[in-house]
Parts: sequence; C-alpha cells; structure tokens
Amino acid sequence: MNCVRRNEAAPREIAEGVTRYLISTDSLMMVAFEFTNGPSRGRIAHHTHPHEQISYVLSGEIAYFVGDEKTVLKSGDMIAIPSNTPHTIQLISKTAKLIDAFHPIREDFLK
Amino acid sequence: MNCVRRNEAAPREIAEGVTRYLISTDSLMMVAFEFTNGPSRGRIAHHTHPHEQISYVLSGEIAYFVGDEKTVLKSGDMIAIPSNTPHTIQLISKTAKLIDAFHPIREDFLK
Repeated sequence: MNCVRRNEAAPREIAEGVTRYLISTDSLMMVAFEFTNGPSRGRIAHHTHPHEQISYVLSGEIAYFVGDEKTVLKSGDMIAIPSNTPHTIQLISKTAKLIDAFHPIREDFLK
Repeated sequence: MNCVRRNEAAPREIAEGVTRYLISTDSLMMVAFEFTNGPSRGRIAHHTHPHEQISYVLSGEIAYFVGDEKTVLKSGDMIAIPSNTPHTIQLISKTAKLIDAFHPIREDFLK
C-alpha cells in the first residue's frame, strides 16, 4: 500500500519555514507544503515548468500570480496552472498549507 | 485565471450526503469531496479506472481498500492508487473531506 501518513512523513525543509512531503504514481505527484514564514515581503520570482499544476489552499491566504494576473486564494480554493505558464506565489498570512498536484511527476522533487 | 473558489463553487451533490467540486488542466484534475453521510454501513463496491489517482484526506477518517489491502487514513495522510487498480473507501467518521487528483482527467466527472 503506497501511502504517506502526516505523522510519519518527516516533511523535508526546503527553505526556512517551508516544508513539504509528497507521494507519487507513475505520472502524477501530490505535494503537501506547509509555510510558517509569511507574510512574504515580496513575491518569489516567477518560475515555469512543463508540468501541469493544480493547487488547493488548505489554510491561510496566498496570492497567486499566473503570468500578469493576480488572485488571492483561501481555504478550499483551487487554481489550475497549465504547462509552461510562468507563475509564483506570495503569502498574505503568516502560515499557510497548500496541496499541489503535478503531471508528470516533479523528478526534481525526488532528489 | 482558471480558479475555483470554495464559496462560489456550488458543489454538485453526486449522492445523498456527498458533494464535489473540481478543476482541471489538459491532463490533470483535482476534485474536492465532502461527505456528511458517514459512517458507512459497508464499503462501496471496488471500482477500477485507467486513471492514476492520489487522495489526500483533509478531515475525518476514511478506510481505503486497494485490492485486498485496507488502511485507515486521517487528516494530512495521502494514498496513491496506480492505474487500473481496484479500490474503494469506507467512511469511519460521520463527516470527511477529501482531495483527489487524477491523471488523465476524469471525463466522466465533466458530464
């Protein structure tokens, strides 16, 4: 059974105040992010990847920038980011939790 | 901007006490399910689909059956279900929330 339990996941700290844990199948990945380093002073630089992405905001308040458009998402809101579309986020709240799904899998997240 | 807000989503009732709202890109779909009809008296029959699936339990307690294996997931736990693998769930708690990601998209959910 391929499952990851939150209390056994040993989330990886990828930056100060940012952790993630994840699971994947052959072509699908889900990543749980937790932020405690908000609010962001500015937005992170836009980044782009060929992977399609959908984000679900679990808690907190996060501004999404997709190309030049900005929208603020809260708990229960979802956003779809097509392949190769420049995007970034900015934390509005101090803490936030986020679920990201990707296709194909983010091989760079497995290193 | 392709986003779905929880308070505007008008979740669709797909069975008594089960609603969903969703979003997708070309090859990726995310579906938010809310259950208020638990605990289940029995498990729903196993079903199978070619889509790869990953589930994230937001709240509540849900037993997953993948093939003959059973595991109980709680808030923050994730499970991966490969393509064409028989699976089903059984609600342990009265209410539960669940995020499912699929690749490719569930065309049957768009009807």
